[in-house]
Amino acid sequence: MSGAENGLFPMNYSARQKKLAEALSLARVTAIVVTHLPNVRYLCGFSGSAGVLLIPAADRPARPIFFTDGRYTQQAADEVQGARVVIGKRAAWAEASVKARQARFKVLGFEAEKLSYAEYQQLAGLLRGRSRLKPLKGTVEQMRLTKDPAEIGRVRAAVELGANLFPSALAAIRPGVSETEVAAELEFEARRAGADGMSFESIVASGHRSALPHGRASVQPIPGNGFIIIDWGVILAGYCSDATRTVHVGPVSKAHQRMYQAVREAQLASIDAVRPGVEAAKVDQAGRQVLKKAGYGAYFTHSTGHGVGIEVHEAPRLAKGQTQKLAPGMIVTVEPGIYIPGDGGVRIEDMVLVTGSGCEVLTPTPKDLITL
Amino acid sequence: MSGAENGLFPMNYSARQKKLAEALSLARVTAIVVTHLPNVRYLCGFSGSAGVLLIPAADRPARPIFFTDGRYTQQAADEVQGARVVIGKRAAWAEASVKARQARFKVLGFEAEKLSYAEYQQLAGLLRGRSRLKPLKGTVEQMRLTKDPAEIGRVRAAVELGANLFPSALAAIRPGVSETEVAAELEFEARRAGADGMSFESIVASGHRSALPHGRASVQPIPGNGFIIIDWGVILAGYCSDATRTVHVGPVSKAHQRMYQAVREAQLASIDAVRPGVEAAKVDQAGRQVLKKAGYGAYFTHSTGHGVGIEVHEAPRLAKGQTQKLAPGMIVTVEPGIYIPGDGGVRIEDMVLVTGSGCEVLTPTPKDLITL
Repeated sequence: MSGAENGLFPMNYSARQKKLAEALSLARVTAIVVTHLPNVRYLCGFSGSAGVLLIPAADRPARPIFFTDGRYTQQAADEVQGARVVIGKRAAWAEASVKARQARFKVLGFEAEKLSYAEYQQLAGLLRGRSRLKPLKGTVEQMRLTKDPAEIGRVRAAVELGANLFPSALAAIRPGVSETEVAAELEFEARRAGADGMSFESIVASGHRSALPHGRASVQPIPGNGFIIIDWGVILAGYCSDATRTVHVGPVSKAHQRMYQAVREAQLASIDAVRPGVEAAKVDQAGRQVLKKAGYGAYFTHSTGHGVGIEVHEAPRLAKGQTQKLAPGMIVTVEPGIYIPGDGGVRIEDMVLVTGSGCEVLTPTPKDLITL
Repeated sequence: MSGAENGLFPMNYSARQKKLAEALSLARVTAIVVTHLPNVRYLCGFSGSAGVLLIPAADRPARPIFFTDGRYTQQAADEVQGARVVIGKRAAWAEASVKARQARFKVLGFEAEKLSYAEYQQLAGLLRGRSRLKPLKGTVEQMRLTKDPAEIGRVRAAVELGANLFPSALAAIRPGVSETEVAAELEFEARRAGADGMSFESIVASGHRSALPHGRASVQPIPGNGFIIIDWGVILAGYCSDATRTVHVGPVSKAHQRMYQAVREAQLASIDAVRPGVEAAKVDQAGRQVLKKAGYGAYFTHSTGHGVGIEVHEAPRLAKGQTQKLAPGMIVTVEPGIYIPGDGGVRIEDMVLVTGSGCEVLTPTPKDLITL
């Protein structure tokens, strides 16, 4: 068992490969070359930074092959499941395409959203006209959209680890301390608790900087009065967490109290809208309406949420115009916010699991406004 | 001044944009749509996660435009230099292509190695035949290949910060402590010292795991005897550091002494080969020959090094077949290694600046074998 897996909630990679192979038959491709690393990991367990999977359709009597290079010989042997491992001299996608040509795969599907235009052209060149390339969109992502029980188990573990870090961030916050120092405490505890790493650059945005929706921790000292947005996530056994809490330093003005309450109500309204069969846009709309009514409509400048799994940002998106219907096993963030330039901002974010009848809020951290 | 810049070594973005605009005229394109974020940062200073630059060729009387979305309104205002900022509703590259169509840019260059095939197709659709798309390769990367004095200043600062962390990693190492705990100490000190973050997932690979060239820190406890490879880097003011040292726990066998000495000699031989005008492959060859002669040829399974700057892996590559000639201002890693499955591994890595007459080793950390 590799370090990356940690023995938590073993995955059934062969079942996923089989399901994909069946989808390929239906899509009338002979095989797919999977180049997007999170998809590679999902399908065979490999967690390194260079590797490609070649998966034949269900109607081909051929085994999946995983291609990587000499840096990953041992890691591939430890991690890859359900596929033969080939250590090549060329880039893994080039090795895979040569193999596809030799195997006379007539129609080779590729991940059009993940392969660069230049790689596409080189791939086409290596196939020498013997295989036709067919752009596929979201084929594996579609499978990843709903999480299986092992994945939900890993996400729960990541969310719990992430939530346990919040007290250490709070303990570090006082006027004059830099934002990066707060991030340092959080990240230190994450590592000590066994996280693989952070799922994104930690956001610690204090005072006027809290009006930046993506205010990565800076060397700015925390001022004596104002909001502090803390948005952090960890990776554990390959799965991500993502949560935000906003706290306040110094006396809270009436205006800041109103802002905080509005975001909290908006967040609860959006969570209330999460259930199977609901369009993603409706969840966005539910919270947005609360903020509009409270007069903050113009200050909620981003969408309400996104899926979380192997990637910290994945499908579905909870945003205007998104017709994707929610389904049991989807895991999304719900994170409305208000950002007032020159003043400050508030965001509250939980991770939410769509269940058979509604939803379950995974993030256990309380949402009362904490003043420090 | 943004947090991302920290006021260190101010960059001349307008000069870079002008140089690129002249290259575009020569390449006979009307404008370029820059989508690769490190290139966007290099050209205008924006450090966020969504933004696109549209830069007209020198012979067009038009100003560069930077496109982003509502999450980055304030950050773009703070950071972007030399370009007009447009906050759009659609994806930034889509906004840029519509603008290119409206401005009647006849030939629109795009970054073929960085734009996905699917984005390329959507881009082509938005242009409605009014602009022709021309794939460009490495146009901005070519400029980034040699660092200007401000960049060298920032890399030096990052390397120094990175080197200062090593004692804290050493202090954390003892049998029974997990690898992640060592990484935690290193990363905590990095944050406290004001790093933006780590430039890659820290590698702490102990005992048999040291035979993994990319052994990210795991929950494995450090054994009582064997090598520990520590490979870490920081980001400071947008520039990366990257260094590796290998230490030993417990009594060192003769075989391990030989391994360490061979890698050290190979590393010095490769550094010796670094000077202007030399082909990148020669630097790889110099160290590889030392390891071959010592009988370790089969155990050096990766290339010797890579460029470092805004990205931790960028051009040039120091590898077999690489004909790129080194030039003053290039900054590369030199990092040979030996990896013996079931036993352990050694790697020593410095960052090296190509100077007018030879090179300067930037990494100040000593290379004598430390036993703990």
